Amino acid sequence: MTSQELTEQIFKKKSFLCVGLDTDPDRIPTYLLSEEDPVFSFNKAIIDATHEFCVAYKPNIAFYEAVGIDGWKALKKTIDYLHTEYPEIYTIADAKRGDIGNTSRMYAKAFFNDLGFDSVTVAPYMGKDSVEPFLEFTNKHTILLALTSNEGAFDFQTLETDGEELYRKVMKTSKNWKNAKNLMYVVGATKAEFLGEIRKLIPESFLLVPGVGAQGGSLEEVCKYGMTKNVGLLVNSSRKIIYASDSSNFAEIAGAKAEALQKQMAQELEKL
Amino acid sequence: MTSQELTEQIFKKKSFLCVGLDTDPDRIPTYLLSEEDPVFSFNKAIIDATHEFCVAYKPNIAFYEAVGIDGWKALKKTIDYLHTEYPEIYTIADAKRGDIGNTSRMYAKAFFNDLGFDSVTVAPYMGKDSVEPFLEFTNKHTILLALTSNEGAFDFQTLETDGEELYRKVMKTSKNWKNAKNLMYVVGATKAEFLGEIRKLIPESFLLVPGVGAQGGSLEEVCKYGMTKNVGLLVNSSRKIIYASDSSNFAEIAGAKAEALQKQMAQELEKL
Repeated sequence: MTSQELTEQIFKKKSFLCVGLDTDPDRIPTYLLSEEDPVFSFNKAIIDATHEFCVAYKPNIAFYEAVGIDGWKALKKTIDYLHTEYPEIYTIADAKRGDIGNTSRMYAKAFFNDLGFDSVTVAPYMGKDSVEPFLEFTNKHTILLALTSNEGAFDFQTLETDGEELYRKVMKTSKNWKNAKNLMYVVGATKAEFLGEIRKLIPESFLLVPGVGAQGGSLEEVCKYGMTKNVGLLVNSSRKIIYASDSSNFAEIAGAKAEALQKQMAQELEKL
Repeated sequence: MTSQELTEQIFKKKSFLCVGLDTDPDRIPTYLLSEEDPVFSFNKAIIDATHEFCVAYKPNIAFYEAVGIDGWKALKKTIDYLHTEYPEIYTIADAKRGDIGNTSRMYAKAFFNDLGFDSVTVAPYMGKDSVEPFLEFTNKHTILLALTSNEGAFDFQTLETDGEELYRKVMKTSKNWKNAKNLMYVVGATKAEFLGEIRKLIPESFLLVPGVGAQGGSLEEVCKYGMTKNVGLLVNSSRKIIYASDSSNFAEIAGAKAEALQKQMAQELEKL
Protein backbone atom coordinates (compact mmCIF):
# COMPACT_ATOMS: atom_id res chain seq x y z
CA MET A 1 0.00 0.00 0.00
CA THR A 2 1.32 3.50 -0.79
CA SER A 3 1.37 6.39 1.69
CA GLN A 4 -1.25 8.11 -0.45
CA GLU A 5 -3.59 5.13 -0.26
CA LEU A 6 -3.07 5.04 3.49
CA THR A 7 -3.99 8.72 3.74
CA GLU A 8 -7.12 8.05 1.67
CA GLN A 9 -8.14 5.29 4.06
CA ILE A 10 -7.56 7.61 7.00
CA PHE A 11 -9.88 10.26 5.57
CA LYS A 12 -12.45 7.66 4.57
CA LYS A 13 -12.58 6.02 7.99
CA LYS A 14 -11.88 9.25 9.91
CA SER A 15 -9.28 7.32 11.86
CA PHE A 16 -5.53 6.99 12.04
CA LEU A 17 -5.69 4.29 14.66
CA CYS A 18 -3.38 1.29 14.54
CA VAL A 19 -4.37 -1.62 16.74
CA GLY A 20 -1.43 -3.54 18.17
CA LEU A 21 -1.99 -7.30 18.11
CA ASP A 22 0.35 -8.13 20.99
CA THR A 23 -1.46 -11.36 21.60
CA ASP A 24 -0.21 -13.23 24.63
CA PRO A 25 -1.77 -16.67 25.26
CA ASP A 26 -1.52 -15.94 28.99
CA ARG A 27 -3.73 -12.87 28.69
CA ILE A 28 -6.51 -13.91 26.35
CA PRO A 29 -9.86 -15.07 27.76
CA THR A 30 -9.33 -18.58 29.10
CA TYR A 31 -12.32 -20.05 27.30
CA LEU A 32 -10.46 -19.48 24.00
CA LEU A 33 -7.67 -21.82 25.05
CA SER A 34 -9.72 -24.86 24.08
CA GLU A 35 -9.91 -23.64 20.47
CA GLU A 36 -7.62 -25.18 17.87
CA ASP A 37 -5.64 -21.95 17.48
CA PRO A 38 -6.45 -19.67 20.43
CA VAL A 39 -4.18 -16.84 19.29
CA PHE A 40 -5.75 -16.70 15.84
CA SER A 41 -9.27 -17.00 17.28
CA PHE A 42 -8.53 -14.06 19.56
CA ASN A 43 -7.04 -11.97 16.74
CA LYS A 44 -9.94 -12.75 14.41
CA ALA A 45 -12.48 -11.67 17.02
CA ILE A 46 -10.53 -8.47 17.75
CA ILE A 47 -10.15 -7.67 14.06
CA ASP A 48 -13.81 -8.28 13.27
CA ALA A 49 -14.82 -5.98 16.14
CA THR A 50 -12.33 -3.15 15.53
CA HIS A 51 -11.62 -2.98 11.79
CA GLU A 52 -14.23 -0.27 11.16
CA PHE A 53 -12.45 2.05 13.55
CA CYS A 54 -8.82 1.60 12.59
CA VAL A 55 -6.69 1.73 9.44
CA ALA A 56 -3.85 -0.53 10.52
CA TYR A 57 -2.93 -3.59 12.58
CA LYS A 58 0.48 -4.15 14.08
CA PRO A 59 1.30 -7.62 15.39
CA ASN A 60 4.37 -7.47 17.59
CA ILE A 61 6.33 -10.41 16.27
CA ALA A 62 7.86 -11.28 19.66
CA PHE A 63 4.51 -12.50 20.92
CA TYR A 64 4.26 -14.99 18.06
CA GLU A 65 7.89 -16.02 18.08
CA ALA A 66 7.66 -16.74 21.82
CA VAL A 67 5.12 -19.50 21.11
CA GLY A 68 7.38 -21.15 18.54
CA ILE A 69 6.05 -22.77 15.39
CA ASP A 70 2.42 -22.46 16.54
CA GLY A 71 3.01 -18.74 16.91
CA TRP A 72 4.22 -18.39 13.33
CA LYS A 73 1.20 -20.34 12.15
CA ALA A 74 -1.11 -17.99 14.06
CA LEU A 75 0.70 -14.97 12.62
CA LYS A 76 0.38 -16.31 9.08
CA LYS A 77 -3.32 -17.03 9.57
CA THR A 78 -3.86 -13.55 10.99
CA ILE A 79 -2.17 -11.75 8.12
CA ASP A 80 -3.92 -13.99 5.56
CA TYR A 81 -7.24 -13.22 7.24
CA LEU A 82 -6.57 -9.49 6.99
CA HIS A 83 -5.60 -9.74 3.32
CA THR A 84 -8.69 -11.74 2.45
CA GLU A 85 -11.36 -10.06 4.57
CA TYR A 86 -10.07 -6.51 4.92
CA PRO A 87 -7.63 -5.79 2.10
CA GLU A 88 -7.95 -2.05 2.73
CA ILE A 89 -6.14 -2.44 6.05
CA TYR A 90 -2.48 -1.41 6.36
CA THR A 91 -0.29 -3.99 8.08
CA ILE A 92 2.83 -3.49 10.18
CA ALA A 93 5.19 -6.26 11.30
CA ASP A 94 6.58 -4.87 14.53
CA ALA A 95 9.78 -6.85 14.35
CA LYS A 96 12.49 -4.26 15.08
CA ARG A 97 14.91 -6.15 12.86
CA GLY A 98 18.26 -4.99 11.49
CA ASP A 99 21.32 -6.90 10.37
CA ILE A 100 24.05 -6.68 7.74
CA GLY A 101 22.97 -6.30 4.13
CA ASN A 102 22.29 -9.82 2.96
CA THR A 103 20.68 -10.79 6.21
CA SER A 104 18.41 -7.75 6.25
CA ARG A 105 17.38 -8.80 2.76
CA MET A 106 16.29 -12.16 4.18
CA TYR A 107 14.20 -10.44 6.85
CA ALA A 108 12.70 -8.08 4.27
CA LYS A 109 11.76 -11.03 2.08
CA ALA A 110 10.18 -12.83 5.04
CA PHE A 111 7.97 -9.93 6.09
CA PHE A 112 7.22 -8.23 2.77
CA ASN A 113 7.00 -11.14 0.35
CA ASP A 114 6.26 -14.30 2.28
CA LEU A 115 3.94 -12.82 4.89
CA GLY A 116 2.86 -9.88 2.74
CA PHE A 117 3.10 -7.12 5.33
CA ASP A 118 2.94 -3.52 4.09
CA SER A 119 5.67 -2.44 6.46
CA VAL A 120 8.17 -3.59 9.06
CA THR A 121 9.86 -1.83 11.97
CA VAL A 122 13.66 -1.74 11.80
CA ALA A 123 16.37 -0.68 14.28
CA PRO A 124 18.92 1.88 13.01
CA TYR A 125 22.00 0.96 15.07
CA MET A 126 23.81 -0.90 12.25
CA GLY A 127 23.34 1.96 9.78
CA LYS A 128 22.69 2.37 6.11
CA ASP A 129 23.53 -1.06 4.72
CA SER A 130 21.32 -2.71 7.34
CA VAL A 131 18.28 -0.64 6.35
CA GLU A 132 18.57 -0.09 2.59
CA PRO A 133 17.73 -3.72 1.72
CA PHE A 134 14.30 -3.11 3.25
CA LEU A 135 13.88 0.14 1.31
CA GLU A 136 14.28 -1.60 -2.05
CA PHE A 137 10.77 -3.04 -1.94
CA THR A 138 8.20 -1.07 -3.95
CA ASN A 139 5.05 0.06 -2.13
CA LYS A 140 6.40 -1.24 1.15
CA HIS A 141 7.47 0.89 4.09
CA THR A 142 10.35 0.57 6.51
CA ILE A 143 9.51 2.10 9.86
CA LEU A 144 12.77 3.13 11.49
CA LEU A 145 13.03 3.35 15.27
CA ALA A 146 13.87 6.97 16.04
CA LEU A 147 12.60 8.04 19.47
CA THR A 148 10.90 5.18 21.26
CA SER A 149 8.44 5.56 24.13
CA ASN A 150 10.21 3.47 26.76
CA GLU A 151 12.40 4.66 29.62
CA GLY A 152 15.54 3.27 27.95
CA ALA A 153 15.01 5.69 25.04
CA PHE A 154 16.94 8.19 27.14
CA ASP A 155 20.01 5.93 27.44
CA PHE A 156 21.27 6.45 23.90
CA GLN A 157 18.63 7.97 21.61
CA THR A 158 18.78 11.39 23.24
CA LEU A 159 22.58 11.57 23.63
CA GLU A 160 24.13 14.63 22.03
CA THR A 161 26.08 13.77 18.87
CA ASP A 162 27.65 16.60 16.90
CA GLY A 163 25.34 19.06 18.62
CA GLU A 164 22.11 17.19 18.14
CA GLU A 165 20.44 14.22 19.66
CA LEU A 166 21.11 10.78 18.23
CA TYR A 167 17.49 10.17 17.19
CA ARG A 168 17.57 13.40 15.16
CA LYS A 169 20.85 12.30 13.58
CA VAL A 170 19.18 8.99 12.68
CA MET A 171 16.37 10.87 10.96
CA LYS A 172 18.66 13.28 9.12
CA THR A 173 21.10 10.61 7.98
CA SER A 174 18.41 8.18 6.87
CA LYS A 175 16.84 10.83 4.64
CA ASN A 176 19.86 10.43 2.36
CA TRP A 177 19.59 6.67 2.01
CA LYS A 178 18.49 5.12 -1.26
CA ASN A 179 14.68 4.93 -1.58
CA ALA A 180 14.30 7.04 1.58
CA LYS A 181 10.80 7.88 0.41
CA ASN A 182 9.84 4.43 1.73
CA LEU A 183 10.76 5.41 5.30
CA MET A 184 8.42 6.05 8.18
CA TYR A 185 9.59 6.61 11.76
CA VAL A 186 8.66 5.41 15.22
CA VAL A 187 8.30 8.44 17.47
CA GLY A 188 6.92 7.89 20.96
CA ALA A 189 4.37 10.29 22.38
CA THR A 190 6.13 10.55 25.73
CA LYS A 191 7.16 14.08 24.88
CA ALA A 192 4.69 15.29 22.28
CA GLU A 193 6.37 18.68 22.00
CA PHE A 194 9.39 16.94 20.44
CA LEU A 195 7.11 16.28 17.48
CA GLY A 196 7.17 19.94 16.46
CA GLU A 197 10.94 19.87 16.09
CA ILE A 198 10.79 16.49 14.38
CA ARG A 199 8.36 17.85 11.80
CA LYS A 200 10.96 20.46 10.82
CA LEU A 201 13.33 17.60 10.01
CA ILE A 202 10.86 15.29 8.31
CA PRO A 203 7.89 17.34 7.22
CA GLU A 204 6.21 14.63 5.14
CA SER A 205 6.91 11.12 6.45
CA PHE A 206 4.39 9.11 8.36
CA LEU A 207 5.14 8.68 12.05
CA LEU A 208 4.09 5.60 13.97
CA VAL A 209 3.30 6.89 17.44
CA PRO A 210 3.13 4.51 20.41
CA GLY A 211 2.59 5.54 23.99
CA VAL A 212 -0.44 7.80 23.58
CA GLY A 213 -2.33 7.80 26.86
CA ALA A 214 -0.35 5.10 28.66
CA GLN A 215 2.84 7.10 29.19
CA GLY A 216 1.35 10.54 29.19
CA GLY A 217 1.25 11.90 25.63
CA SER A 218 -2.25 13.12 24.78
CA LEU A 219 -3.79 12.53 21.38
CA GLU A 220 -4.57 16.24 21.06
CA GLU A 221 -0.94 17.20 21.64
CA VAL A 222 0.37 14.55 19.27
CA CYS A 223 -1.90 15.94 16.55
CA LYS A 224 -1.11 19.55 17.35
CA TYR A 225 2.62 19.01 16.89
CA GLY A 226 2.78 16.05 14.56
CA MET A 227 -0.08 16.16 12.05
CA THR A 228 0.54 17.16 8.44
CA LYS A 229 -1.91 18.02 5.67
CA ASN A 230 -1.79 14.34 4.66
CA VAL A 231 -2.20 13.40 8.34
CA GLY A 232 1.18 11.66 8.52
CA LEU A 233 0.31 9.90 11.75
CA LEU A 234 -0.53 6.38 12.79
CA VAL A 235 -1.31 6.26 16.49
CA ASN A 236 -0.96 2.84 18.01
CA SER A 237 -2.87 1.34 20.89
CA SER A 238 -2.37 -2.28 21.89
CA ARG A 239 -3.19 -3.51 25.37
CA LYS A 240 -5.74 -0.79 26.16
CA ILE A 241 -7.86 -2.11 23.32
CA ILE A 242 -7.21 -5.82 23.03
CA TYR A 243 -7.10 -6.51 26.78
CA ALA A 244 -9.84 -4.08 27.79
CA SER A 245 -11.83 -7.07 29.00
CA ASP A 246 -11.21 -10.77 29.50
CA SER A 247 -14.86 -11.76 29.57
CA SER A 248 -16.77 -13.47 26.76
CA ASN A 249 -17.65 -10.09 25.24
CA PHE A 250 -13.99 -9.00 25.10
CA ALA A 251 -14.21 -8.29 21.37
CA GLU A 252 -17.24 -6.06 21.73
CA ILE A 253 -15.51 -4.07 24.48
CA ALA A 254 -12.34 -3.83 22.38
CA GLY A 255 -14.52 -2.50 19.55
CA ALA A 256 -16.00 0.13 21.86
CA LYS A 257 -12.51 1.22 22.98
CA ALA A 258 -11.37 1.49 19.38
CA GLU A 259 -14.49 3.43 18.45
CA ALA A 260 -13.92 5.90 21.30
CA LEU A 261 -10.40 6.58 19.99
CA GLN A 262 -11.70 6.83 16.43
CA LYS A 263 -14.20 9.50 17.50
CA GLN A 264 -11.42 11.56 19.08
CA MET A 265 -9.38 11.14 15.91
CA ALA A 266 -12.31 12.26 13.75
CA GLN A 267 -12.40 15.49 15.77
CA GLU A 268 -8.69 16.03 15.21
CA LEU A 269 -9.05 15.39 11.48
CA GLU A 270 -11.78 18.05 11.29
CA LYS A 271 -9.22 20.61 12.40
CA LEU A 272 -7.22 20.03 9.20
CA MET B 1 26.69 -22.62 29.91
CA THR B 2 28.78 -20.28 32.07
CA SER B 3 31.66 -18.17 30.73
CA GLN B 4 34.01 -20.32 32.78
CA GLU B 5 32.74 -23.51 31.15
CA LEU B 6 33.12 -21.86 27.76
CA THR B 7 36.73 -20.97 28.58
CA GLU B 8 37.35 -24.57 29.65
CA GLN B 9 36.00 -25.83 26.33
CA ILE B 10 38.25 -23.36 24.51
CA PHE B 11 41.38 -24.65 26.24
CA LYS B 12 40.28 -28.25 25.81
CA LYS B 13 39.64 -27.92 22.09
CA LYS B 14 42.38 -25.33 21.53
CA SER B 15 39.83 -23.32 19.59
CA PHE B 16 37.69 -20.24 20.04
CA LEU B 17 36.01 -20.68 16.69
CA CYS B 18 32.29 -20.05 16.27
CA VAL B 19 30.78 -21.42 13.06
CA GLY B 20 27.95 -19.29 11.68
CA LEU B 21 25.07 -21.40 10.39
CA ASP B 22 23.76 -18.83 7.90
CA THR B 23 22.08 -21.55 5.92
CA ASP B 24 20.47 -20.27 2.74
CA PRO B 25 18.50 -22.87 0.71
CA ASP B 26 19.72 -21.09 -2.44
CA ARG B 27 23.35 -21.75 -1.57
CA ILE B 28 23.42 -25.30 -0.30
CA PRO B 29 24.42 -28.15 -2.64
CA THR B 30 21.47 -28.76 -4.94
CA TYR B 31 21.40 -32.51 -4.35
CA LEU B 32 20.29 -31.80 -0.76
CA LEU B 33 17.13 -30.11 -1.96
CA SER B 34 15.43 -33.46 -2.46
CA GLU B 35 15.83 -34.29 1.23
CA GLU B 36 12.88 -33.89 3.58
CA ASP B 37 14.51 -30.97 5.39
CA PRO B 38 17.41 -29.69 3.26
CA VAL B 39 18.42 -26.94 5.70
CA PHE B 40 18.65 -29.34 8.61
CA SER B 41 20.48 -31.95 6.50
CA PHE B 42 23.01 -29.31 5.52
CA ASN B 43 23.44 -28.11 9.11
CA LYS B 44 23.80 -31.64 10.43
CA ALA B 45 26.51 -32.44 7.90
CA ILE B 46 28.36 -29.20 8.66
CA ILE B 47 28.11 -29.76 12.41
CA ASP B 48 29.30 -33.35 12.22
CA ALA B 49 32.29 -32.26 10.13
CA THR B 50 33.29 -29.17 12.13
CA HIS B 51 32.35 -29.74 15.79
CA GLU B 52 35.81 -30.97 16.75
CA PHE B 53 37.33 -27.68 15.65
CA CYS B 54 34.93 -25.16 17.12
CA VAL B 55 33.35 -24.35 20.47
CA ALA B 56 30.21 -22.58 19.28
CA TYR B 57 27.59 -22.44 16.54
CA LYS B 58 25.68 -19.31 15.63
CA PRO B 59 22.61 -19.68 13.42
CA ASN B 60 21.62 -16.30 12.04
CA ILE B 61 17.89 -16.36 12.67
CA ALA B 62 17.06 -14.33 9.55
CA PHE B 63 17.96 -17.24 7.32
CA TYR B 64 15.45 -19.47 9.09
CA GLU B 65 12.74 -16.84 9.44
CA ALA B 66 12.99 -16.12 5.71
CA VAL B 67 11.81 -19.65 4.94
CA GLY B 68 8.79 -19.33 7.23
CA ILE B 69 7.49 -22.20 9.33
CA ASP B 70 9.81 -24.72 7.66
CA GLY B 71 12.70 -22.51 8.67
CA TRP B 72 11.69 -22.53 12.33
CA LYS B 73 11.36 -26.30 12.19
CA ALA B 74 14.87 -26.60 10.73
CA LEU B 75 16.21 -24.26 13.42
CA LYS B 76 14.56 -26.27 16.19
CA LYS B 77 15.91 -29.53 14.78
CA THR B 78 19.39 -28.01 14.51
CA ILE B 79 19.49 -26.80 18.09
CA ASP B 80 17.99 -30.06 19.37
CA TYR B 81 20.64 -31.97 17.42
CA LEU B 82 23.39 -29.88 19.02
CA HIS B 83 21.96 -30.39 22.51
CA THR B 84 21.69 -34.13 22.04
CA GLU B 85 24.85 -34.94 20.13
CA TYR B 86 27.26 -32.24 21.23
CA PRO B 87 26.07 -30.81 24.56
CA GLU B 88 29.51 -29.26 25.18
CA ILE B 89 28.91 -26.80 22.31
CA TYR B 90 27.97 -23.19 23.10
CA THR B 91 25.04 -21.89 21.06
CA ILE B 92 24.28 -18.35 19.90
CA ALA B 93 20.99 -17.20 18.42
CA ASP B 94 22.08 -14.36 16.17
CA ALA B 95 18.76 -12.57 16.29
CA LYS B 96 19.69 -8.93 17.01
CA ARG B 97 16.44 -8.45 18.90
CA GLY B 98 15.45 -5.61 21.20
CA ASP B 99 12.08 -4.22 22.20
CA ILE B 100 10.38 -2.71 25.25
CA GLY B 101 10.55 -4.66 28.51
CA ASN B 102 7.68 -7.13 28.28
CA THR B 103 8.33 -7.82 24.65
CA SER B 104 12.04 -8.40 25.17
CA ARG B 105 11.01 -10.88 27.84
CA MET B 106 9.02 -12.77 25.20
CA TYR B 107 12.04 -12.90 22.89
CA ALA B 108 14.28 -14.01 25.77
CA LYS B 109 11.84 -16.77 26.63
CA ALA B 110 11.72 -17.90 22.99
CA PHE B 111 15.47 -18.17 22.55
CA PHE B 112 16.64 -19.17 26.04
CA ASN B 113 13.84 -21.42 27.26
CA ASP B 114 11.93 -22.75 24.27
CA LEU B 115 14.87 -23.18 21.91
CA GLY B 116 17.45 -23.54 24.66
CA PHE B 117 20.17 -21.31 23.21
CA ASP B 118 23.00 -20.30 25.54
CA SER B 119 23.00 -16.74 24.24
CA VAL B 120 21.27 -14.28 21.95
CA THR B 121 22.47 -11.14 20.18
CA VAL B 122 20.58 -7.96 21.11
CA ALA B 123 20.58 -4.41 19.70
CA PRO B 124 21.19 -1.61 22.22
CA TYR B 125 19.25 1.29 20.63
CA MET B 126 16.22 1.07 22.94
CA GLY B 127 18.37 1.09 26.07
CA LYS B 128 18.34 -0.50 29.49
CA ASP B 129 14.76 -1.73 29.79
CA SER B 130 15.02 -3.43 26.40
CA VAL B 131 18.10 -5.43 27.41
CA GLU B 132 17.68 -6.18 31.13
CA PRO B 133 14.89 -8.74 30.55
CA PHE B 134 17.44 -10.85 28.66
CA LEU B 135 20.00 -10.46 31.45
CA GLU B 136 17.70 -11.99 34.06
CA PHE B 137 18.27 -15.52 32.80
CA THR B 138 20.84 -17.52 34.79
CA ASN B 139 23.74 -19.07 32.89
CA LYS B 140 22.61 -17.38 29.68
CA HIS B 141 24.42 -14.58 27.88
CA THR B 142 23.17 -11.52 26.12
CA ILE B 143 25.53 -10.44 23.36
CA LEU B 144 25.07 -6.72 22.84
CA LEU B 145 25.85 -5.15 19.47
CA ALA B 146 28.61 -2.64 20.13
CA LEU B 147 30.82 -2.11 17.07
CA THR B 148 29.63 -4.18 14.14
CA SER B 149 31.75 -5.13 11.14
CA ASN B 150 29.60 -3.66 8.35
CA GLU B 151 30.06 -0.37 6.54
CA GLY B 152 26.99 1.14 8.25
CA ALA B 153 28.71 0.76 11.63
CA PHE B 154 30.23 4.15 10.89
CA ASP B 155 26.85 5.85 10.47
CA PHE B 156 25.95 5.96 14.16
CA GLN B 157 28.13 3.64 16.25
CA THR B 158 31.24 5.76 15.91
CA LEU B 159 29.54 9.15 16.35
CA GLU B 160 31.02 11.23 19.15
CA THR B 161 28.69 11.48 22.15
CA ASP B 162 29.89 13.36 25.22
CA GLY B 163 33.45 13.05 24.02
CA GLU B 164 33.44 9.36 23.20
CA GLU B 165 32.08 7.19 20.48
CA LEU B 166 28.58 5.80 20.79
CA TYR B 167 29.70 2.15 20.85
CA ARG B 168 31.95 2.94 23.80
CA LYS B 169 29.07 4.70 25.53
CA VAL B 170 26.96 1.58 24.93
CA MET B 171 29.63 -0.55 26.61
CA LYS B 172 30.12 1.80 29.55
CA THR B 173 26.43 2.32 30.19
CA SER B 174 25.54 -1.35 29.87
CA LYS B 175 28.12 -2.27 32.52
CA ASN B 176 25.81 -0.66 35.07
CA TRP B 177 22.72 -2.62 34.09
CA LYS B 178 21.34 -5.30 36.38
CA ASN B 179 23.08 -8.68 35.88
CA ALA B 180 25.63 -7.04 33.58
CA LYS B 181 27.89 -10.02 34.26
CA ASN B 182 25.74 -11.87 31.70
CA LEU B 183 26.78 -9.48 28.92
CA MET B 184 29.06 -10.22 26.01
CA TYR B 185 29.64 -7.81 23.12
CA VAL B 186 29.79 -7.96 19.34
CA VAL B 187 32.95 -6.20 18.20
CA GLY B 188 33.87 -6.43 14.53
CA ALA B 189 37.45 -7.09 13.54
CA THR B 190 37.44 -4.38 10.89
CA LYS B 191 39.74 -2.30 13.03
CA ALA B 192 41.50 -4.72 15.35
CA GLU B 193 43.46 -1.96 17.06
CA PHE B 194 40.13 -0.67 18.50
CA LEU B 195 40.14 -3.84 20.57
CA GLY B 196 42.98 -2.57 22.74
CA GLU B 197 40.96 0.46 23.79
CA ILE B 198 37.86 -1.68 24.21
CA ARG B 199 39.71 -4.00 26.58
CA LYS B 200 40.40 -1.03 28.86
CA LEU B 201 36.64 -0.52 29.11
CA ILE B 202 35.61 -4.15 29.43
CA PRO B 203 38.63 -6.14 30.55
CA GLU B 204 36.80 -9.40 31.23
CA SER B 205 33.77 -9.88 28.99
CA PHE B 206 33.73 -12.24 26.06
CA LEU B 207 33.70 -10.55 22.67
CA LEU B 208 32.02 -12.12 19.67
CA VAL B 209 34.18 -11.08 16.74
CA PRO B 210 32.84 -11.27 13.18
CA GLY B 211 34.68 -10.08 10.12
CA VAL B 212 38.03 -11.80 10.65
CA GLY B 213 39.63 -12.29 7.27
CA ALA B 214 36.73 -11.19 5.09
CA GLN B 215 36.87 -7.48 5.91
CA GLY B 216 40.52 -7.24 6.78
CA GLY B 217 41.04 -7.92 10.46
CA SER B 218 43.65 -10.65 10.98
CA LEU B 219 43.28 -13.32 13.62
CA GLU B 220 46.71 -12.49 14.98
CA GLU B 221 45.81 -8.83 15.48
CA VAL B 222 42.46 -9.65 17.03
CA CYS B 223 44.23 -11.86 19.56
CA LYS B 224 47.03 -9.38 20.19
CA TYR B 225 44.61 -6.63 21.14
CA GLY B 226 41.58 -8.54 22.35
CA MET B 227 42.63 -11.73 24.14
CA THR B 228 42.45 -11.98 27.92
CA LYS B 229 43.86 -14.59 30.28
CA ASN B 230 40.52 -16.40 30.02
CA VAL B 231 40.65 -15.94 26.24
CA GLY B 232 37.51 -13.78 26.14
CA LEU B 233 37.11 -14.19 22.40
CA LEU B 234 34.79 -16.07 20.11
CA VAL B 235 35.79 -15.53 16.51
CA ASN B 236 33.03 -16.21 14.04
CA SER B 237 33.31 -17.51 10.52
CA SER B 238 30.22 -18.31 8.49
CA ARG B 239 30.31 -18.36 4.71
CA LYS B 240 34.02 -19.09 4.38
CA ILE B 241 33.44 -22.38 6.16
CA ILE B 242 29.94 -23.53 5.31
CA TYR B 243 30.02 -22.48 1.64
CA ALA B 244 33.65 -23.41 1.01
CA SER B 245 32.40 -25.97 -1.51
CA ASP B 246 29.07 -26.86 -3.07
CA SER B 247 30.10 -30.33 -4.18
CA SER B 248 29.08 -33.59 -2.52
CA ASN B 249 32.07 -33.39 -0.16
CA PHE B 250 31.10 -29.89 1.03
CA ALA B 251 31.06 -31.00 4.68
CA GLU B 252 34.54 -32.49 4.51
CA ILE B 253 35.87 -29.27 2.96
CA ALA B 254 34.07 -27.19 5.59
CA GLY B 255 35.74 -29.39 8.21
CA ALA B 256 39.14 -28.73 6.68
CA LYS B 257 38.51 -24.97 6.67
CA ALA B 258 37.45 -25.09 10.31
CA GLU B 259 40.48 -27.18 11.20
CA ALA B 260 42.81 -24.69 9.50
CA LEU B 261 41.35 -21.89 11.63
CA GLN B 262 41.53 -24.06 14.75
CA LYS B 263 45.25 -24.65 14.14
CA GLN B 264 45.88 -20.90 13.93
CA MET B 265 43.87 -20.43 17.11
CA ALA B 266 45.87 -23.11 18.90
CA GLN B 267 49.03 -21.14 18.10
CA GLU B 268 47.50 -17.97 19.50
CA LEU B 269 46.41 -19.79 22.67
CA GLU B 270 49.97 -21.01 23.20
CA LYS B 271 51.05 -17.39 23.53
CA LEU B 272 48.94 -17.00 26.67
